[in-house]
Amino acid sequence: MERLKKQMGFIVEVDKVKKIIRQTYLADSSRKENDAEHSWHLALMAVLLKEYANEEVDLAKVIPMVLIHDLVEIDAGDTYAYDAAGAAGKRERETKAADRIFALLPEDQGSWFRALWEEFEAYETAEAKFAHVLDNCQPLLLNDASDGLSWSEHGVRKSQIYKRNERTADGSREIWEYMKELVDKHIRLGHVINE
Amino acid sequence: MERLKKQMGFIVEVDKVKKIIRQTYLADSSRKENDAEHSWHLALMAVLLKEYANEEVDLAKVIPMVLIHDLVEIDAGDTYAYDAAGAAGKRERETKAADRIFALLPEDQGSWFRALWEEFEAYETAEAKFAHVLDNCQPLLLNDASDGLSWSEHGVRKSQIYKRNERTADGSREIWEYMKELVDKHIRLGHVINE
Repeated sequence: MERLKKQMGFIVEVDKVKKIIRQTYLADSSRKENDAEHSWHLALMAVLLKEYANEEVDLAKVIPMVLIHDLVEIDAGDTYAYDAAGAAGKRERETKAADRIFALLPEDQGSWFRALWEEFEAYETAEAKFAHVLDNCQPLLLNDASDGLSWSEHGVRKSQIYKRNERTADGSREIWEYMKELVDKHIRLGHVINE
Repeated sequence: MERLKKQMGFIVEVDKVKKIIRQTYLADSSRKENDAEHSWHLALMAVLLKEYANEEVDLAKVIPMVLIHDLVEIDAGDTYAYDAAGAAGKRERETKAADRIFALLPEDQGSWFRALWEEFEAYETAEAKFAHVLDNCQPLLLNDASDGLSWSEHGVRKSQIYKRNERTADGSREIWEYMKELVDKHIRLGHVINE
């Protein structure tokens, strides 16, 4: 029963990720989304878009990876994709958070989640590259649906989006092509600055 | 490109599930949770609690099943677990919703999701039984964390919880034991009516 209690304790602790607000608006622009909603969306996308990964990916790794990739933000907070100042110290804050949060689980599961999170951050395996494609594509889909609201609010430039996505084509050439078309559309609409 | 467009269209359409509010409060009692957050939680629980399923379950089925099990509520709305009146016509509303929503996908993926949803509803396979364990356990964990707020608000009786969970032990004897202890605790605390 000790093991199950630890697992249930972790499951309740990570409920807090539902309170971590991102800068992306829901498709209907009504409010910003949170990390739990974002992670649900990525897991569903992993199932549907697996066929577009450049390399064969194992969903038994990709899905847990995207489900837990933002848990460190419970302690470290969300850093907006285009917030250079916020990025300072991010790695240190997140490592400390990972130390605390994954240690709540039984050792085998905590180590596995920690390793999956490190693998995501290292951006080297086929699964990590595909998870990053999803993580970068999902807010772009929501920005498109919400008339570029978050881009307009933050005065986002094309060069920032391209910098953020400099490795997206490594994970999926086809999805990156789709994303580039959306960016071009929102440059034409004046929601993304063309520089 | 036609196939990818359909998939992306579906991914944006189901963003609406983030607006479907359930009766369960977040662990910190601050607000009620929505279907996307709930589904994220279930997918994570599937990964962590698989070892307690009575029968061997395939996560490659359980996870997509829990990720999509509430999508029909985009059209049909959420029916509270203990709302007998709301349950009338629920199956018909949800079938109509499934007809529309899953048809947005390419045929192969739409049929697969539809079949997974029907399998969940039929409550017969090991995967469906385990998915129902998670679906019934998660709100109980949140009710426990939030001092039984939702139970108190609705005047929920022990017999209603037991009726709702009459097949939970079919999916996982150990998790049902854990859940029964929580119910007993909240009867003692006066949050659940002992009848």
